[in-house]
Amino acid sequence: MTDTFSSSDSVRSGATLRHARKITLAGPWKLELGGVLPSVQVCYETYGTLSARRDNAVFICHALSGDSHVARHSEADDAGWWDLAVGPGKAIDTDRFFIICANVLGGCRGTTGPSDINPATGHPWGGEFPEITTADMVNVQAALVDELGIDRLLAVVGGSMGGMQAIQWALAHPHRVAAAVPIATTCRLSAQALAFDVVGRNAIRKDPGFCGGQYYGGPGPADGLAIARMIGHVTYLSRQSMADKFDGDRHQPREVEYEYEKEFSVGSYLAYQGGRFVERFDANSYIALSLAMDRFDVARDFGPLETAFAHARCRWLVVSFTSDWLFPTSQSRQIVDAIIAAERPVTYCNMPSDCGHDAFLLAEDLARYGPLVSAFLARTLNGDNGRAPAPPQPLARPDRRSIYHHGPRLDYDQIENLIPAGVGVLDLGCGDGQLLGRLKKRGHKDLLGLELDGEALAATVVRGVDVLQYDLDQGLAMFRDKQFEVVLLSQTLQTVNDPPKVLLELVRVGEIGIVSFPNFAHKSVREYFWAHGKAPVTAAFPYSWYDSPNRHFLSIVDFQDLCQKLGIRIHRMVALDSATACQVTEDANLNADMAIFVISRP
Amino acid sequence: MTDTFSSSDSVRSGATLRHARKITLAGPWKLELGGVLPSVQVCYETYGTLSARRDNAVFICHALSGDSHVARHSEADDAGWWDLAVGPGKAIDTDRFFIICANVLGGCRGTTGPSDINPATGHPWGGEFPEITTADMVNVQAALVDELGIDRLLAVVGGSMGGMQAIQWALAHPHRVAAAVPIATTCRLSAQALAFDVVGRNAIRKDPGFCGGQYYGGPGPADGLAIARMIGHVTYLSRQSMADKFDGDRHQPREVEYEYEKEFSVGSYLAYQGGRFVERFDANSYIALSLAMDRFDVARDFGPLETAFAHARCRWLVVSFTSDWLFPTSQSRQIVDAIIAAERPVTYCNMPSDCGHDAFLLAEDLARYGPLVSAFLARTLNGDNGRAPAPPQPLARPDRRSIYHHGPRLDYDQIENLIPAGVGVLDLGCGDGQLLGRLKKRGHKDLLGLELDGEALAATVVRGVDVLQYDLDQGLAMFRDKQFEVVLLSQTLQTVNDPPKVLLELVRVGEIGIVSFPNFAHKSVREYFWAHGKAPVTAAFPYSWYDSPNRHFLSIVDFQDLCQKLGIRIHRMVALDSATACQVTEDANLNADMAIFVISRP
Repeated sequence: MTDTFSSSDSVRSGATLRHARKITLAGPWKLELGGVLPSVQVCYETYGTLSARRDNAVFICHALSGDSHVARHSEADDAGWWDLAVGPGKAIDTDRFFIICANVLGGCRGTTGPSDINPATGHPWGGEFPEITTADMVNVQAALVDELGIDRLLAVVGGSMGGMQAIQWALAHPHRVAAAVPIATTCRLSAQALAFDVVGRNAIRKDPGFCGGQYYGGPGPADGLAIARMIGHVTYLSRQSMADKFDGDRHQPREVEYEYEKEFSVGSYLAYQGGRFVERFDANSYIALSLAMDRFDVARDFGPLETAFAHARCRWLVVSFTSDWLFPTSQSRQIVDAIIAAERPVTYCNMPSDCGHDAFLLAEDLARYGPLVSAFLARTLNGDNGRAPAPPQPLARPDRRSIYHHGPRLDYDQIENLIPAGVGVLDLGCGDGQLLGRLKKRGHKDLLGLELDGEALAATVVRGVDVLQYDLDQGLAMFRDKQFEVVLLSQTLQTVNDPPKVLLELVRVGEIGIVSFPNFAHKSVREYFWAHGKAPVTAAFPYSWYDSPNRHFLSIVDFQDLCQKLGIRIHRMVALDSATACQVTEDANLNADMAIFVISRP
Repeated sequence: MTDTFSSSDSVRSGATLRHARKITLAGPWKLELGGVLPSVQVCYETYGTLSARRDNAVFICHALSGDSHVARHSEADDAGWWDLAVGPGKAIDTDRFFIICANVLGGCRGTTGPSDINPATGHPWGGEFPEITTADMVNVQAALVDELGIDRLLAVVGGSMGGMQAIQWALAHPHRVAAAVPIATTCRLSAQALAFDVVGRNAIRKDPGFCGGQYYGGPGPADGLAIARMIGHVTYLSRQSMADKFDGDRHQPREVEYEYEKEFSVGSYLAYQGGRFVERFDANSYIALSLAMDRFDVARDFGPLETAFAHARCRWLVVSFTSDWLFPTSQSRQIVDAIIAAERPVTYCNMPSDCGHDAFLLAEDLARYGPLVSAFLARTLNGDNGRAPAPPQPLARPDRRSIYHHGPRLDYDQIENLIPAGVGVLDLGCGDGQLLGRLKKRGHKDLLGLELDGEALAATVVRGVDVLQYDLDQGLAMFRDKQFEVVLLSQTLQTVNDPPKVLLELVRVGEIGIVSFPNFAHKSVREYFWAHGKAPVTAAFPYSWYDSPNRHFLSIVDFQDLCQKLGIRIHRMVALDSATACQVTEDANLNADMAIFVISRP
């Protein structure tokens, strides 16, 4: 049964916590909304070894129904909720990092929560448990980190509600976090996600077993909690993943022991998930934690997002999943845009996935975004915080190979020569980050790439450069005027939807822009076209008319004309003949098959 | 309060049914799943006047929580649930049509349902009410139509669950339906939509007030029903529409009288909607109708969809909404594809909307798809069933105006001349249907357009031609080999993503294909390009390089080469010089600025 219905959901835990340790934080412990706890017990687990410099600690924040048991401690141990990501040699490598995971405040897996005894009454807190917030959860985690003798975390990592905690860590404890990795999360829930939570809590509170939260010793609000969990489960999956799971055998429900509707296969799944959850989770904790999640609202607590994220001092890796409709991609982009506005380093990946919100816990998806997490953490551990200069490398000499095919991109040499030493550079359409990697080695600090192709992202991160998985055609509104000294657009102008818009953004965001493109009016093209009356296939235009990625065909003169029309100033042109790898000085529009322009606002 | 929270949801009714009439259908009335009712009472309303030929009756099927009161009967009357669409001069015009709307079997608004007395016991049926299906609902409606003395309905129209009934009518009573208009509906629910229904029913059945459905006289499962309704409400809206409604004042809930969570504005909305619903709807009806909806499965009941829709004898108008995630666009496309496979006439519109499933009831959306419904019904009423031949029109003579600008498209004359009389024609990228309209007047029967631009659809329907709002780049897989004698692709090849794919599909679906495109190798282009080294701007290519809708630039020779490569046979070429509107015979690739090709498989 368990196998058939395995879902990653936020947490499938319920493991025996035989490796968990507990500490007690002395009180009175003041809570953000005015409540006070006499003391707080924290249940946590650690993995790996803290380095002598105490600089390799990674805090993992769990989602709504998780606990401290993020991974097995040994083969014989119970499964952890994120075994796929955490372990020796895995994305979060227990051989390299000291990993801490603690049950959250308000939970029911060892850390103080509503099911614990209120010392003032001798009975469980129940409905009297004070209201908590994400800030309270993180404050408790910070005290635990103190107790472990760690000043600064290498990274805080979390998905869903855990991602909210990662953001809270970065904003509220900026000097204690070197890197934050919020995954499939948001600065505040959508009204849609919030609504589903509201309905779930209503189902719990209206269950006659709830008794205002004072149900311990009685049956408790089992049906209400199961209903809330069923709603949650639908929101964790995607329409596609549900179709894959349940469309084939829609009218053949499986046998389940729980007393809920069993007419459809998806019904038996929900009955199982709802029923199982009640056995391992406390309804008051569910209410407390989901309310904390619903109240999380960065803009309300820290001011407008771009101001809020200016509080942080860490570097960021933000990950979202295309089919996640509970924490949609647009919300991760909002986080990323705010980090950019605050001019902090960030890498962003929007993973293509059919698995919905659950994706962050699934093997297939983790296999693809895990390397990014791994490269990002390695880079942070190596102290690359964007400020460590590296010795400049000798410039490669151009060779005779075509710039348009495999091998080194000769235009990169030329472009590199046009970039003043040490300046900040944004590369639009950076591919695998080759040019940015060269600039990095040359000692540039403030580097960022934009690239739509997700496969290429990790390569750029491995070079020590941040990269955003963005579509150029959506514009550059997230960057302020002159945010970079140089903005590059190399061999990409002819593929975007709206070249004028991209060029105007380029010279807005960069003090100068450097644009390279193949010259469609090169003599080889003109001659071929004149003689044959066919769409030319040349070294610079190697595609057939029907399968070219190019959307536009422009010449050097076309580009000059457009710049004039747009009021863009041209500082310099480098016209190249790729056959000889030489600069062209005579009649560039006829003799050059490639051009590089340095442009700016007037 | 009502205003603040007005939502169109499937039905906002609850009106006094002062215009409703009731008839009793004698029993025993056998139900599809084996149950028997001693008799069935049907509560219905009618609008407008039945014509002497009894050929103008439109049956409107309501959604889950609706009733017979589809519209006001007068200004003084209570609002109906679809006043926006039904009334004098409206999309479903009560001045032209005789409109019937009846509460469904199993409902609680006058037609026999679980809250009615079971004559065998003298108590309400409650949980003993026999299980019903969409087929049962429609059988009752058909009996009502019999009683009204109507053999054949002009149209059956319905949205959501009402759309399922429209489909059922067309498939199960094919000779009684001239046209069907399923809106925002599906051949079966997605597993996701089904799951939300399951959770709602669990909430009702687990409410201690439910008492196995025998709750009449007691408090009833008020909380369970309210929870189910809250879930429903979230699914009727879109993420965007919820953000618009609730993000601005998220933390300022409104005052509501109902006892549910009130911390967030969206919570007060759900409390209001849930609480209100309980006052006007019966929980047993909710279970009965939602189960009937969940069991609706055309493929299970009628066989594979293409076979199933071959049962129908009507013409179809299918409408979906881009932001409807409960009944997503892909499900309407599935219906349309099945109708096409069955070679029945269909028009399809996928309305851009932010309003989710609710869109079909909203003023803004109705203003846009209403004209389509209106044109479609008018056409059906006028007896245009695709078989009435019209006298051929004299062919227009070419004039001297450019074919590329406003005014008559001269290439249409040439294309028209190439099309044999009376054959079936599919026009890919048909625009406003001008050419198809001309063919229609010439007496062609089997005509269909494909067009991405939704604004142009109604114009084509007004010409008496069906049209599908499809994107050519998604392929033509819904058409069988040689489904049309002629497939047209006029001035569109250069704008599609993948010309080889489109051409191969063209000659698969058509016995012949006719393709026209501007010739990029015309002497004016070549001369300009040779002399100026700039992307040409000519009569045939009036755009600048950076704002052209063209994705590809091909010459006559390029097209010929590609046909050879793809194994496509060229039967004929008509090369045109648009300046003189004359055919070109010498060196077409140099002298023609436009070409029309007749092609086929070898």
